[in-house]
Amino acid sequence: MSEFELINQYFKSTTVQRDDVLLGIGDDCAILSTPPGKQLAVSTDTLISGVHFPINTSAEDIGYKSLAVNLSDLAAMGAVPAWVSLAISLPDADENWVSAFMQGFNQIAKIHNVALIGGDTTRGPLSITVSVTGFVDIERTLKRSNAKVGDVIFVTGNLGDARLGLESLLGNVSITDEDSMSYFLNCLNRPEPKISIGQLLTSYPVAAIDLSDGLLADLNHICKASSTGAIVQLEKIPLSEHLLNTLDNKLNWSMICNAGDDYELCFTCPPNFIDDLLFDLNKHGINVFPIGEIDNTCEISCFLNGEQYLNLGSGYNHFTNKNKANEE
Amino acid sequence: MSEFELINQYFKSTTVQRDDVLLGIGDDCAILSTPPGKQLAVSTDTLISGVHFPINTSAEDIGYKSLAVNLSDLAAMGAVPAWVSLAISLPDADENWVSAFMQGFNQIAKIHNVALIGGDTTRGPLSITVSVTGFVDIERTLKRSNAKVGDVIFVTGNLGDARLGLESLLGNVSITDEDSMSYFLNCLNRPEPKISIGQLLTSYPVAAIDLSDGLLADLNHICKASSTGAIVQLEKIPLSEHLLNTLDNKLNWSMICNAGDDYELCFTCPPNFIDDLLFDLNKHGINVFPIGEIDNTCEISCFLNGEQYLNLGSGYNHFTNKNKANEE
Repeated sequence: MSEFELINQYFKSTTVQRDDVLLGIGDDCAILSTPPGKQLAVSTDTLISGVHFPINTSAEDIGYKSLAVNLSDLAAMGAVPAWVSLAISLPDADENWVSAFMQGFNQIAKIHNVALIGGDTTRGPLSITVSVTGFVDIERTLKRSNAKVGDVIFVTGNLGDARLGLESLLGNVSITDEDSMSYFLNCLNRPEPKISIGQLLTSYPVAAIDLSDGLLADLNHICKASSTGAIVQLEKIPLSEHLLNTLDNKLNWSMICNAGDDYELCFTCPPNFIDDLLFDLNKHGINVFPIGEIDNTCEISCFLNGEQYLNLGSGYNHFTNKNKANEE
Repeated sequence: MSEFELINQYFKSTTVQRDDVLLGIGDDCAILSTPPGKQLAVSTDTLISGVHFPINTSAEDIGYKSLAVNLSDLAAMGAVPAWVSLAISLPDADENWVSAFMQGFNQIAKIHNVALIGGDTTRGPLSITVSVTGFVDIERTLKRSNAKVGDVIFVTGNLGDARLGLESLLGNVSITDEDSMSYFLNCLNRPEPKISIGQLLTSYPVAAIDLSDGLLADLNHICKASSTGAIVQLEKIPLSEHLLNTLDNKLNWSMICNAGDDYELCFTCPPNFIDDLLFDLNKHGINVFPIGEIDNTCEISCFLNGEQYLNLGSGYNHFTNKNKANEE
């Protein structure tokens, strides 16, 4: 099967159709139309086999996750997803692999109405680069620099679950309960981008980021961009029953605070907007969890039940921190 | 040096600034503003070390070429370049390599006023994915499907030079003349995207494609999209003095017609528009070369001085055609 047949068969026919895609896959460029008065939000992420997912991850999960992590960036900006480009390098033209990959990819593309507008298929070590575009109103974007001293810090859900799934696959943690194992692996392979929450947040003066590199690393990006510091109360971080049961009473706060791949949102909100925000979110059945406060220091301090908690490390770094995932 | 420091140092500070980039590198997404009444043209290409460029290509040349080949797709659509996203996988965080890469990348970015709006840096085998966006008027795009029976086929410049450079690097051709060698390598590593020509063509009812996979393969895309065939007169294909001297009188038409990496445009024009088009191009100092005609067959036939010329092969295929470049 030739490269072009592969592209035609799997990329051209199975995707979401949108009226604003004036010319789709098959010419030198896709031609796209932007809604008047809206701006574009664009994000690009690369997933490398053995770095961003374990090498034995299923093609379907890789397809799902590679789009999900990009949509998570749109969520963190409050954008409405629209289009996606996909560049895949494959060791060989494996039809079954591409078919399964696209099944996972299309599954989440349909949920968020994202049209595949183009891309590239090349021979090389397995690697996927996805670039997503969404629509925003520039006056209502969730910039990292929006945080102000006194803002309350929230997260949208449980932290650490995806990391436990990874640690278990790597043989670093033994998980005997099958339900828990399946839950952790689902968190690792099928993160749910918080698109609706992001859009609801755009009515409020919040700063937001998606938790891809770990709470402390990502909150640090907000603090840096906003020239603030932060206090985190560890005992307020939401944790799943599965995680609590698995770790028994030996909570590893460093793991939880530096876990990558959570893909929850972390956002800040001024105190006088919190009642309205929570009312708004609750109307949509959404719970969020206050875990700390923005302060005027230049650092993030963590406390556990009132006592300062040190030595939590500082998040995920693709190059310098080799022991944080299954990197070579 | 951490991933984030790398990104900040080389990607954030050295790029073209544009007013339509409302929020650049450093948040979850870039925020961009589209000019009213224009549509977007988007193209994505991946370059893999050892597949799309020889493994010993300099970082600066890789940087230049990875943006140039994407801009060539915009040229083939008649688009005005605006923004670019860059995803690089690197075996390690080599500061010198990134610095040289960005020097080549920024050199061509400046020529075409393209702002770097984001991307991703990951650890992995060397691979570069570039996604460019330009502006077009949907009524005046150079779609592949615009060709009509009787249209004359043009190319914008010499074919085969980049391929001779590659063949020489691979040891398949011996080139003794230093000027020729340096000329061929420049064609291979520093292709010039035909942005201005593409924009001039938008005033005429032309079909266009950029020659990345070889004349026959790319012309075949026009024919397929337009449901036509074509006749190519080989002796009319423009060839450089360097190529003629190097090949002496043993012209390898299969190599010339299937050479990848030319990055000239191939376009079609109805006969009644040709005088105006050539006048327009000549005013701007641009020469183009008629090499054949669109016909109503379903295939491409090649003739050399009136005699049909068979067995020219069918262009470049990343997966099935291993002997066409320096693939493993």
